[in-house]
Amino acid sequence: MNQFSEKSSNEPFILVYHERAAEFCMQELQKLGVTHIACASTREEVMAVLDRVEILFCWRFPMDLFAKAPALRWVQLMGAGVDDVMMSNQLPEHVTLTRIVGQFGTAIAEYVFAEMLYLVKNLAKFQEQQQISLWKPMKLSVLTGKILAVAGLGSIGAEIIRLGRAFGMHTIGLSRTGAHQHLVDQHFFPEQWGEFVQQADVIVITLPYTESTRAVVDKMIFEQMKSTVMIVNIGRGAVINEADLIAFLQTHPESAAILDVFEMEPLSSENPLWRLPNAVVTPHISGPSSTAEVSDFFFANLKRYLTDVELYGIVDRSAQY
Amino acid sequence: MNQFSEKSSNEPFILVYHERAAEFCMQELQKLGVTHIACASTREEVMAVLDRVEILFCWRFPMDLFAKAPALRWVQLMGAGVDDVMMSNQLPEHVTLTRIVGQFGTAIAEYVFAEMLYLVKNLAKFQEQQQISLWKPMKLSVLTGKILAVAGLGSIGAEIIRLGRAFGMHTIGLSRTGAHQHLVDQHFFPEQWGEFVQQADVIVITLPYTESTRAVVDKMIFEQMKSTVMIVNIGRGAVINEADLIAFLQTHPESAAILDVFEMEPLSSENPLWRLPNAVVTPHISGPSSTAEVSDFFFANLKRYLTDVELYGIVDRSAQY
Repeated sequence: MNQFSEKSSNEPFILVYHERAAEFCMQELQKLGVTHIACASTREEVMAVLDRVEILFCWRFPMDLFAKAPALRWVQLMGAGVDDVMMSNQLPEHVTLTRIVGQFGTAIAEYVFAEMLYLVKNLAKFQEQQQISLWKPMKLSVLTGKILAVAGLGSIGAEIIRLGRAFGMHTIGLSRTGAHQHLVDQHFFPEQWGEFVQQADVIVITLPYTESTRAVVDKMIFEQMKSTVMIVNIGRGAVINEADLIAFLQTHPESAAILDVFEMEPLSSENPLWRLPNAVVTPHISGPSSTAEVSDFFFANLKRYLTDVELYGIVDRSAQY
Repeated sequence: MNQFSEKSSNEPFILVYHERAAEFCMQELQKLGVTHIACASTREEVMAVLDRVEILFCWRFPMDLFAKAPALRWVQLMGAGVDDVMMSNQLPEHVTLTRIVGQFGTAIAEYVFAEMLYLVKNLAKFQEQQQISLWKPMKLSVLTGKILAVAGLGSIGAEIIRLGRAFGMHTIGLSRTGAHQHLVDQHFFPEQWGEFVQQADVIVITLPYTESTRAVVDKMIFEQMKSTVMIVNIGRGAVINEADLIAFLQTHPESAAILDVFEMEPLSSENPLWRLPNAVVTPHISGPSSTAEVSDFFFANLKRYLTDVELYGIVDRSAQY
């Protein structure tokens, strides 16, 4: 009855791959009228249909199989970050790669402000006091008037800046192209990392992991931060040199870090970050895991694909994101 | 050199009263050029100067002394709430009473969103997991799209609504006069408490304590709330019937309360609120305690007093706030 079910076998064949949620995503898409579709949760299930797949909608796909899909033309990832695919170098050049854009900003910005306010308002202390029924007022710090520095001005960074402004913060930003420098009070380019961090009260990393962002925040950059800085990483762990971060936190007890991403995930239970009193560690939960929402994004993109409209979220292979 | 020091003994005599910060406040005002001023931290110190006092700038003043100050014309309280003075009935009718307005909104709204996000994002759970180095992702709820109901549309309520909108929440409000109903998507009057709370995901009480707000949120109102409601009280404890609140929280484990004010403060260590798993208790810290800021407010009002301009924050004795 709709543009999908009307089509016959000319309709491109879609494979949904996800270790846990593939079937759910497929059903969501079937409800919307998509018929030429299969799902897989294992390598074996992929192999069974691989020669027919034109479109792949996937999360943590076994990447050596990209080159073994002769009809593959488009891969839609279920996340915002594409570093694993880019670094693997296994996706043939002629295949279009898209990522989710414009959808994670709201949830991630809420996470960022939840954790920032948690530290700024000293909520852990009040929770401890409640546990022993202790009434002991303390003066609270405020966000208003503080300087919020956001590295990366994509849709996630933009949303964090918007909320920062609502909280009365001054905003500065760093980005590779400067294309969205109008979003912030002051803009810096990657060669200005030192100046960028010097004045910041809070630094939020929303950068993708690419060859040019690998460990870009290292000892030299930490040394230029305020001793009271709060560092938030919701981009990719590898953008920060983790050993340098740990050393900085250990030697600057008034600084703090809010970390949702790490060089290696899951974070090893041996990693000292878990136990640093000035580090908040969460298990990569800042982005929404709603497969329904990513299915909606894919469905909108699929309509564009079928009508030859440029896809949302096309990855620039040279920029690696 | 300024309008204060130029004046001679005709300048009105000011007494600053605060159990801990009176001297600090006096010094702040002296820096601004105020000369005809004394400070007191005890009843005895008040008595020594009481017959000369025209203006009283105070916090928790011994209220039976109001009537013993023959020259008293204006009392500026150091807080936003005036219920203690109104209920005491000890301030002579001819004395003007002013409270702080427009100054607590920012800090209180930050507190409200800090605690709301703390619960919505389940930060206590992630903190527990960090303590045992446990990497266990969970899906996070979001504020966006939820219905925020704010009772009281003064400067504090307005600021909470503004932030709620920034977080993508729908806003509804309840107020006595409806004068600021333009701030919200939908407005209710006090006779509509039931309808007001029915649809709310979060209810924030910013109301003053008066004869008409005493225990206005009681069993009948709780019964009309969603079982998953989050109740935030930063107004006055006595606006909620505390026994009914405790019963509601005990019988609705999915509901939650964030409480910074109580019927009796400090909250007794015997009070069950301390130990309810779905109650967050803080010791009346949402408003800023910056005596410097409060002194600035008083100084601006003093200039108006000296030039016969209507004061900021005049209390309407009939409305009791």
